[in-house]
This record gives sequence, structure tokens and C-alpha cells, in this order.
Amino acid sequence: MLNEGGGIRVWYDDYTTIDWIHDYVKERVRIRKLHSIKGIRGWIVTSYDGLQGWVLVFLIGIVTACFAAGVDIAAEWGSDLKDGYCTESLRLNRNFCCANITNNGLDLNDDNKCDKWNSWSQAIRIHDESDAKLFDFFAYVVVALLFATGSALLVKYNSLYARPSSKSSARIEDIEPKRKELKPYAAGSGIPEVKTILSGFVIRGFLGIRTLWIKAISLAMVVSAGMTLGKEGPFVHIACCIGNVLSRLFHKYNKNEGKRREILSASAAAGVSVAFAAPIGGVLFSLEEVSYYFPSKTLCRSFFCAIVAAVSLKLIDPFNTGKIVMFQVSYNKDWHVFEIVNFLILGVLGGLFGASLCKLILLYTKYIRNRTWLKQWPVVEVMMVVVITAAVNFGNKYTRMSNTELIFGLFSECTNEKEHDGLCDNSFNGMFEAFYLLGLALISKFLTCVITFGIRVPAGIFIPALLVGACFGRMLGIVMQYLTMTYPDFPIYSTVCNQNINGDCVIPGVYAMVGAAASLAGVTRSTVSLTVIMFELTGTLTYVLPIMTAIMISKWVADGIIKHGIYDLLIDLGGHPYLDSKTEYDGANTTFTTTLDLCQRDLEVIDVNDLNTIGELKNKLKKLSTSGYSDAGFPIVDNKILVGYIASTELEHALSLAHGSDNLTRCYFKDENVIDKSANFTAYVNQAPLTISKNASLEIVLELFKKLGLRYVIVVDRGQYVGVINKKRLLIYLRQITGKDMNNML
Amino acid sequence: MLNEGGGIRVWYDDYTTIDWIHDYVKERVRIRKLHSIKGIRGWIVTSYDGLQGWVLVFLIGIVTACFAAGVDIAAEWGSDLKDGYCTESLRLNRNFCCANITNNGLDLNDDNKCDKWNSWSQAIRIHDESDAKLFDFFAYVVVALLFATGSALLVKYNSLYARPSSKSSARIEDIEPKRKELKPYAAGSGIPEVKTILSGFVIRGFLGIRTLWIKAISLAMVVSAGMTLGKEGPFVHIACCIGNVLSRLFHKYNKNEGKRREILSASAAAGVSVAFAAPIGGVLFSLEEVSYYFPSKTLCRSFFCAIVAAVSLKLIDPFNTGKIVMFQVSYNKDWHVFEIVNFLILGVLGGLFGASLCKLILLYTKYIRNRTWLKQWPVVEVMMVVVITAAVNFGNKYTRMSNTELIFGLFSECTNEKEHDGLCDNSFNGMFEAFYLLGLALISKFLTCVITFGIRVPAGIFIPALLVGACFGRMLGIVMQYLTMTYPDFPIYSTVCNQNINGDCVIPGVYAMVGAAASLAGVTRSTVSLTVIMFELTGTLTYVLPIMTAIMISKWVADGIIKHGIYDLLIDLGGHPYLDSKTEYDGANTTFTTTLDLCQRDLEVIDVNDLNTIGELKNKLKKLSTSGYSDAGFPIVDNKILVGYIASTELEHALSLAHGSDNLTRCYFKDENVIDKSANFTAYVNQAPLTISKNASLEIVLELFKKLGLRYVIVVDRGQYVGVINKKRLLIYLRQITGKDMNNML
Repeated sequence: MLNEGGGIRVWYDDYTTIDWIHDYVKERVRIRKLHSIKGIRGWIVTSYDGLQGWVLVFLIGIVTACFAAGVDIAAEWGSDLKDGYCTESLRLNRNFCCANITNNGLDLNDDNKCDKWNSWSQAIRIHDESDAKLFDFFAYVVVALLFATGSALLVKYNSLYARPSSKSSARIEDIEPKRKELKPYAAGSGIPEVKTILSGFVIRGFLGIRTLWIKAISLAMVVSAGMTLGKEGPFVHIACCIGNVLSRLFHKYNKNEGKRREILSASAAAGVSVAFAAPIGGVLFSLEEVSYYFPSKTLCRSFFCAIVAAVSLKLIDPFNTGKIVMFQVSYNKDWHVFEIVNFLILGVLGGLFGASLCKLILLYTKYIRNRTWLKQWPVVEVMMVVVITAAVNFGNKYTRMSNTELIFGLFSECTNEKEHDGLCDNSFNGMFEAFYLLGLALISKFLTCVITFGIRVPAGIFIPALLVGACFGRMLGIVMQYLTMTYPDFPIYSTVCNQNINGDCVIPGVYAMVGAAASLAGVTRSTVSLTVIMFELTGTLTYVLPIMTAIMISKWVADGIIKHGIYDLLIDLGGHPYLDSKTEYDGANTTFTTTLDLCQRDLEVIDVNDLNTIGELKNKLKKLSTSGYSDAGFPIVDNKILVGYIASTELEHALSLAHGSDNLTRCYFKDENVIDKSANFTAYVNQAPLTISKNASLEIVLELFKKLGLRYVIVVDRGQYVGVINKKRLLIYLRQITGKDMNNML
Repeated sequence: MLNEGGGIRVWYDDYTTIDWIHDYVKERVRIRKLHSIKGIRGWIVTSYDGLQGWVLVFLIGIVTACFAAGVDIAAEWGSDLKDGYCTESLRLNRNFCCANITNNGLDLNDDNKCDKWNSWSQAIRIHDESDAKLFDFFAYVVVALLFATGSALLVKYNSLYARPSSKSSARIEDIEPKRKELKPYAAGSGIPEVKTILSGFVIRGFLGIRTLWIKAISLAMVVSAGMTLGKEGPFVHIACCIGNVLSRLFHKYNKNEGKRREILSASAAAGVSVAFAAPIGGVLFSLEEVSYYFPSKTLCRSFFCAIVAAVSLKLIDPFNTGKIVMFQVSYNKDWHVFEIVNFLILGVLGGLFGASLCKLILLYTKYIRNRTWLKQWPVVEVMMVVVITAAVNFGNKYTRMSNTELIFGLFSECTNEKEHDGLCDNSFNGMFEAFYLLGLALISKFLTCVITFGIRVPAGIFIPALLVGACFGRMLGIVMQYLTMTYPDFPIYSTVCNQNINGDCVIPGVYAMVGAAASLAGVTRSTVSLTVIMFELTGTLTYVLPIMTAIMISKWVADGIIKHGIYDLLIDLGGHPYLDSKTEYDGANTTFTTTLDLCQRDLEVIDVNDLNTIGELKNKLKKLSTSGYSDAGFPIVDNKILVGYIASTELEHALSLAHGSDNLTRCYFKDENVIDKSANFTAYVNQAPLTISKNASLEIVLELFKKLGLRYVIVVDRGQYVGVINKKRLLIYLRQITGKDMNNML
């Protein structure tokens, strides 16, 4: 049984539920009205109406690409600034600074030849080599620290001023939030909140224009700082902000929360599309991971939005490479059957690393960040983490390069022309050194990711997860390479390898790629979208089957260790109200039998036969607004028989229109009773609210809420009103029966 | 208003609806029972139960791959048999026959060097060249005719004997079908029927073991005959048959129609996975095009099933190439910005061709096949079509090769080593000839596709659509190549092309690929799944953006010409009951106001206060079974107030258990009334049937049926029983308001 005390009433106060089915019906009625317009005008009006959605997602695609390009350019410039500056112009990053030398785009190995680029030690003319190195190290740490601190302060500044700007996305604006807790909306990946919003809640200000700017700027700064975090999650958030802001231009989407969520799903696709140059992967990520309802029209829109974003980004060409594929590889060999075992091992490792990353992040946040002084001093925490990260990274040649450079290096095959920072040295010592350093990189990236993820700056988990996976994958690849070179006659692989002389029977880069996919699968538990994102990231399809197999195995292993992926864990941790459509609540450990235990029976109702004066109704509304269910409404009964339901917003509207604000005027909810037509509220009453029998099982209630996106359902017993189940209450109940720790909520 | 006459009662008689939500609740109850078992035994039982689904899809993947490999091998052998035979052994196809010469797998251009392969004219030693050619032509046509006729006869044979074998998949076995119309279940692509089944209907025998064998064998024969048809649709059907047959092994899936549909969705993914070696594309095709409900667990299962199928197929290696990518290309150049215009043109052309293909197939079927003698003589029609196809194909070197060989040739880039049957001749004459012949091929393939699709042999639409698109794409590619070679200084492309001397500024193969994708999009209207299938078919990702753009444009153009894709058109044409979750029925042209008009009010009800004797109940059941709604049930009322619902199957079951089959025994539906416990039927009554107010709008009713998969919903007015809306009736109503031609139904 649910406790009815005061404790539960404040939960989820910041969230307003939306009513999908109500919004859906509203939209259908609007469209039917449009269709009824005859002739050429009707055709024009209908066409314009149909076109709006496409125009909107087109705009979203372009704007998202611009933001992404801006962040990319700024982050690259900032990243390089840690090492030095361009003597020609401080505005140039290393690539553009040295552009006339390396004209064919990004070429990492020609850095030394560039004279225009000065390290900081060169700038102040330190000639002693060890002094120079030490100074460079300090400069590196200081610049990283400056960027990270700036980012953290920006996020904090935003949270201080978040309230006033959030009005535009609020649904019920006249009811003041009771608690003034400040939310750093620009921090973190944003995906858990986006998921919550898409599942049918309103979080005020989270997708506002201020959050958009702050998140974009602070993301560029924090990526520049070289911390162990990615930009995919924040890009999804940024794209959703853009979608939300731009949809204000179109009345159809601005006034319909249900329709607007279709646009937000498409925006999320555009976000991934530009983050990883993965348009298809973006659509699938939005479908598989982020969205709640995904009708086929949304699929098309998302597809279009993702194309527009990717094409725009290609035309803007922020990296000056002419390509949008991030980690382009061109493996020239297929895999051998004996390697399946290795891919299975990578799958298992990926599952272990992914799940333990999830678990450690959860434990660190729960028991260290939230219970020590760190909670009060988020900016200090960021400064601490960035100093640790920078110090650790500087010592190892692999971690010192930017995260994306390292991933690219690990994925690459060894061809004769390139020297990949010692990764392709086939001597025993070279391999041992690479193995050893990668091991250190693995540990440092893994641990810094644990302490980084969750600090109050924009931070995604994709890149760290890829990094960890690529490290252990490449390590296994090096071991395999060593084995095939040293023991070429070993029966398992001798038959397929004997024609190869240079130890290139296996490609270590492939192992890095498969490992990265497996690790990411362990963290997010996505399958299809992840596979496609891996293809699009690397531009290769030869390794479909190994990647798919490793992802599947990793998912199983990780599911065995911790049941949910990182986003669902963060939703729980953040205390967001989210009715997970994937989880089955079996309720085996409860005394739940029927909906009777679940519904609220002490709600105010309106009896059509009562003298419902304006004053009384206003009182009822006031009571409701202080009860924690301000987005609910009143069941309407006639001799105990349920005859309708009026939402509080509708009642407010009706009351505001009832002329003569005399508090004693009687209002009517039943046509037969009406005497004074001006106070006839029957038009505002939902005459056919969805009802459910008091004998119905929890499963049916859940199905109704999950699949129809209801805000409430009314419980009846043979036609008589019994009570109301609303979504927030249902969620609180589910938290109770699944035994989730209540202390960590909010 | 719906006419209540006898006419509508026989519609959809062959289809039984399933009740998703009922099946879902049943499953949850079963699982809760399992979870309540304590200790080690509980753990084992639960684990075994959870494992079943994975084991099942694993088996399905392997068996599907075996069937696919069998069909592939047989079809290749049969295809080659049209041209000649292997002197070493008649069992070998040309590739294997000549294997010791072309050891590196399939090499189309070395055919002439193979001595062991005899053409038919060589076999009977005709030495005169023109005579030999004539004889070869006749042999070609005769072999094709034999294969196709065999296939058509097999399909017909199956339809004659379909009934007796179909029992196992029937739900209600004791009610005899009223009409004995014979259904050629193995004919066509099968996807429309699979969609109908997945949307919640039962079509008896359609997924039976006999259909499986007949479809596989006749598919191999008809592909051998070289007709303009593909194997993707039939493979989906075959995979679903395998899924259905194998799920009989597991009680959990055999007895739960809802759960079984999850397995069928996964099977469909495996079908595409083996048809095109496109595991990810398969999952997405199942998700986007075939399935109705696709919960996240099904996504994982489908993913796994598709991997297992693809890996198995790679290990079986039916083509002896070591690869599973069908049309592997390796373009070495990125696209230029000026080419976007061409890709847009290809998109428009694809939309035009795709939509007109749909439209012509529809018109041909409606007005020629169904209204002339062809309807009565399907086998003769097949014979006629195959002779026309073979005769037309033989004359043109491009059409003479098998469909897949032609597509592969058109997709390929021109490298120096290969001579692609004149496609790479860069002289004006060479280009003109290729253009001319491809134009002829385009026309012949397009027209033969129109007359082929819909004949009574297994036939998919993917390959013909790809063919048509590849032809016009390559033609545009040749034109562009000619232009860039002849006018190298034309401003639009001179800057990007001037460094290229050999006319390889554009790659005609890319145009063929983009055209193929666009044409397929025009036919099926898929977006995401199609893009991924194109990647996996060609193994290249460089052209993501052109392909996506062309697909999007093509879909828009095609939607403008004819609103639905081929599968939805075929569902309509076949008269299958399908509640399309994509279409919005706006009902603007009807007088529909409330559910009151829609519900059946003349149904038999059971009043708990009546003397419901066994005899009376049996009578009611009998009446119901002859009413065309044999899968319905009875509302249970108590003084007009609705208190429950009993499904006819449940009532039958209860009656069969009520001991003492004395027809005068009273049965009880209300606990308080019970005197004789043996006839207490309350346990069989659904105490909480879903109800809806008589004031509810059509939109809400549709949402309930679409999203929850209901079989029926009960209309109430303030608690009092009014009537029942069941799914079949709703579908008939929707057909009426959308004005679909009733004469073509069944």
C-alpha cells in the first residue's frame, strides 16, 4: 500500500506530466478541421500544415550542424592551446596554422615540421630540455585547469539563473515551484533528462535557449581541457534544445506537447548524426535508446533531420579534411574463423569493463560525491579532477594525445607509410612497450572516467567507453600478433597464417575496434544502433559479424552484472520520473492485488448535482495545486456514477472565461441542469475519460500508461467512481515495489 | 452506419484475431508463478524459462541459413542449367565445375576457358554457329519453362492439400471453416500475409511445415527459371515458417500467440539477413516494415537471430566465395558536391519508377489478372510469363545474365583489370551501345516485372526494383561520364574534374547504386532499413549521404503518386484484415460521431441473474460460431451493468469441464449466486474487461486497438452495457469510411 503521508507529496514536483492521448486527439481534431476547408484554400492550408514539420526538422538539422561545427572548431583550437600556440595568429589551431605544410588535411605525424607552431616553452625561450618539458607540463595543466574551471563556472552561473528563463517551456505558468533548488541543467550528458522528457514529462528550462548556449560553450571548453569525457551526450542535449527552441516558431508544435516530442526525437537523431558523423546511427540511437514513442512518421522525420545535419556538417567541413567519418580505417583483410574465439573474449571483456564502469560510477556518485564535501563544491571538484587527469595524461604518450586521436591511432592498421607512435613496432621490445603503455592508459582512462562522469560540466560517456575498449582490444591484438609471429606453426592458425610473413595474420586495429564496440555495449546496452554507429565511425563494413557478436556477448555479460545501462541508472540516480517501457515490473514481492490499492480515493470530485459555485471551484483548484498533483484534475460524478473528468488547466480556463467573477455564481457540468448558459462548463469536460475496472491487474494498468501515454486513468466499480491513478503516483508505487532506495531520489 | 446484413458476416472468416493484452497478462502471470518458486529449483526453472527464447532464435537462425544455402545452391545450379551442363557431373554448377580453373572463387570473365562446361548445342554437337545459337535459345526457353511450370504446379499442389496440414497452427480447431476456397499460400512474396499475422491475426496453415517446404523448393525452381523476381520476400516467409514450426518445441511460445509473434519478428530479420547477407538491415526491415509491435526485447532477439543466421551462412559458404556480401564494390573516390543534383534526379526517377511499378502491378492485377481467364489458369499464366521473359531476356547480353549478375555488373566500378561486358568501353560508340542496351534492359525488366509479380509462384520485389534502378542509374552515370569527358571545361565540374584524364571524374557504378536504392525506396517506402541494406549489399559506406538523400526524395515523389508502398497495397488487394498503425483515418467524409455507431448492439449477452443452463450456453456458442465472429465472446451483465466478459474459447473450456453434461444444469457467473460449485464459471470470466464510454471518439478507439492490440472493447454508458466493438468489425468499418473497393476483397 502506498503511504498517503506528506512525504510523497513533494516528489516529482518539478515535473509536469503531459497527456499523449489528449494531445493526439487534439491534433486529430485540428487536422480534421483543416481537411474540412474546401477548394484551393483548403489545399494550400493543408499543404502548408503538412510541410511545417519538414521545414522545422530541416532548420533543426542545419542549426545543429552549425552548433556542432562551432563546438568542434573551438574544441580543437582549445585542445591545441594546451601544447602551444600559432605564431601567425592565435586564432589558428595547429592544423590550420601548419596548413600550407600538410595540405592534404590532418596528418598527425608531420607536426614537428611546422615552424609556425610554438610550444609554450619555446614562447618564453626556455632552452634547457628538461626545464622546457617541465614548463610545458605546467602550461598543459594550467591551460586545462583554466578551461575546465571556466566551464564549471558557466554551468554554475546557468543554474543560478535558470528559473526566470524557463517560463517559455513551462506548461502551467501560474503555479510557482515550491522548492528553489538550483539545477545545473547544462551539466552531464543530458540524455537521462531527454529520455524523461520524451517519456512524457516537462522539465522546465531544461531545453531552453539559455541552457543551449551555456551547454555548447562549456562543452567546447571542457573538451579542450582534455578530460576523459565525450561530446555525444551533450550534442544530443544541444540538438534537443535547438529542436525545442525552433519548434516555438510553429504553432502546431509549440502548443502540442505530444507533437513536440516527435520533433525532439528527430533532433536527438541529428545530435548523434553530427557528434559522430553517423546519420543512420543517430536515427537508430534515437529510436532504440532515447525515444519513448516512435511512430513511423517520426522515423522519416528523424531520417531527414539526420541527413540534413550530416550534409550540412560535411559542407561546413570543420576539420578541414573533406570527410565526416571520424576514425576512417581501411582494413584490407577479412577475418579468420579462429579469431571468433578472440572476438568472444573481447565481448566478455567489454561486458566486464562496461558494467563495472557503470557500477563504479554509480557507487562513486552515491557514496563519495553525494556524501562528502564534493557535493557542496562542484567547481572545486571539477578543478581537482582536471588537474588529476592532466597530470596523469601528460606522462604517457598515448594518453597525452586527445581522446579522439588515441582512438583513431588504436583503430588504425599498420601500413608501411605510417608510424603510429610505436603501435606498429613489431620487435618484441616494441610490442612489449606498447602493451605496457596501453595497459597504463587503460587503467588511467578507466579511473579518470569514473571520477569524471557526473561532475558538473557537460560530459558524455561514449568516447571514454570507446577509449577503454580500444585499449584492451589493441592489447589483445598485440598479444595475438606476438603469438602468430613467434609460434607460426601453432595448429589453430598455422593453416590460415602461413602465407603471411610479416606478422600481419591478425590486424590489431580490428581488435581495438571490436573491443571498443563491446565496451560501449557494456555501458549503454544498445545493440543495433551501436553496431551501425561503429560502421559509420570507421567507414568499414568488413567486420559486421565480429562486431555484432562481441556486442551481443558484451550485453549479456553486462546484464548479468548490473541490470540496466548507464542512462537508466542515471535516471534512477537523478530521481527522474520515468516509466520504463523495457522493464517488466513483476511485483512478486508485494501484496498488490488490484488497482484498488493503487488509486487515490481521497481526491476532490465534482458532483454535477452540487451547487458548484465559482468560489468553491477556485478553492478546489487551490487545494489541488498544493497537493503535489497540480497537473491533475477532477473526476465528475452524478450520483456516484462517473460521468466525466475535467483537467485542472481546463477548469482554470473555463473559470477565467466565466464572466461575472462573482464567487457565488453556480457552474454547470451537466446539460440538463443548466440555467445560466455563461457558466455551462460541459464543453470543457472530457465526456469519455478512460476507465478501468477496480478488478484490473497491475499489468493492464501499466500497459495502458506505457503504450497510450496516459496522464491518469479512473478506477470504477460497475460504473461507480472509485478513485484515480495518475502517472506520478504510479511511478512512486513502482519505486516502492521494486525496492529502490528512496534516499537518493532528487 | 455499418450495415448489419448477411454480406459482411463472411468477411475475414479465415482470420482469427488474437488478444495481445490477454496473452501478455497470461504470460506475466506465468512468470510471476515461476518467480515465486524458491531456492535453487526456482533459479533453475526461471533460468531455463529465460533461456528458451534465446535457444529458439538460435535454432531459427541456423535452420534459416541452411534453407537459404540450399535454395541458393539449387538456384545457381538450376540457373546455369539453362545454358548448359557440366560434363564431369551433372550435379555441379558452372562455378564448381570450373573450380580448378578459377580457384579464387567466382570469376565471371573466365567462363570461356572452362572446357568441362558444355552448352546444350555442344551437347548434341551442332557445329553451325547460327544453328547452335538458335538451339541454345530454345534450350534456354525450354529449361526455364520446365522450372517455372514445375514451380507453379508445386504451389498449386500445396493449395489443394493445404487444409489438412494446417490444423497445428489453428487456434480454434473445432469450428470448421465455412468456405473451402483454396489458397496458394506458397505464392507471392508472403510479406503482406506475414504483416497481417504479426498485426494480430491467425491465418491457418500459412506458416505451416508444408508451406515451408513447398515455398523453398518452388522458389529455387522459379529463380532458376530466370524470371524477373527476387527471393527476399519468400525468404522472409520461409524464415517465419521456420520460426513458427520451431516454436512448437517450446510450450511457452506454442501456447501464447502474442509471444509467438515476437519470435516471428526475429525470424523475419533472419530471413532478410540470409537473403541479402544483411543482418542489421534484416533487423531494421523487420522493425520498420514487417512487425507491428516491436518491444526492446524483440529487438535484441532479432539482432541475435540475424547474427546467427549470417554467421551460419558464412560458414556454409554456398557460393564458395568466402564472402557473404552480395554486390561487393570498392569505390576509391568520394563524391563531388556538383553531383548532388544528379543524386536528386536519381531520387526523383526512383520515385517515379517505383511508384509506377506499384501502380501498374496494382492495375494489372485488378483489371487483367483478376478479370480475365488468367484468374482460372494460374499455371498457364506462369508458363506464358516465363516464355515471354526468357525470350525477351535472351536477346540482350545484359538481361541474359542472371539478375544478380547484372546488378553486380552495373554497381561495379571500371578498373583496368576487368572488362564489364562493354560497360567500361569509354569510346563514344561503346558508351552509346551500353546506354542503348541498358535502356532496352530497363524497359524489358520493368514490364516483365509488372506481369510477373503476382503470378502464383514465390516472388519477391526487391531484386526487380534494384534492377530497374540500377539500369536507369547506370544510364545517367554513362551520360555524366560522357559529358565530363567530352566537355571537360564546363564550369560546374571543371574545377573538381580537371586532374582526372581518363573520364573517371564520376563513377557510373555509384549512380547505379544510388538509382537502385531510390527505385527500391519508391516501391517499398522504407527508409532506414533500406539504407542499411544497401550498405550491407555493397559493403561500402562512402556514399551514405547520396543514398540517403536519393531515398528520401524518392519516397516523397512516390508518396505523391500513390500513397502506400507495395506491401500495404498487396494487403489491401489481398483483402487481409490489417489495422495499419501508420495511416491516420481522419474520417472527415463520414457521419461518425461516437462509438455508439460502431459497436454491435445485437450480440448475445449473459445475465448473471438468468438461469444460464448448459444447454442454453451451448446454443449461444453455436449461434456465435455461425455469426462470423467465432473468436468473440459474451459480455456478462448484472441488471444491465457490465460486470465481465467471457471469451468463447473460455466458455467452451468451462463447459467441457462442467461435469454432468446435463443440459439443464445451471451455470453461475456471480459468486453470490452459486449453489452448485461444479458449475461456477466465475473463474473463467474476465472480471475487468476494457471498456470505453459511448461518447469516446473514433481516435481513442483506434489508439486502443492499435497500441494495445485488443481483440474487443466493450462500450458502456455510465456503467451500463451498450455493445461491443471487435477488431474485425472495426476494420470493416474503416474500409467503408476510407472508401476502399469492396469488390476486390478476397
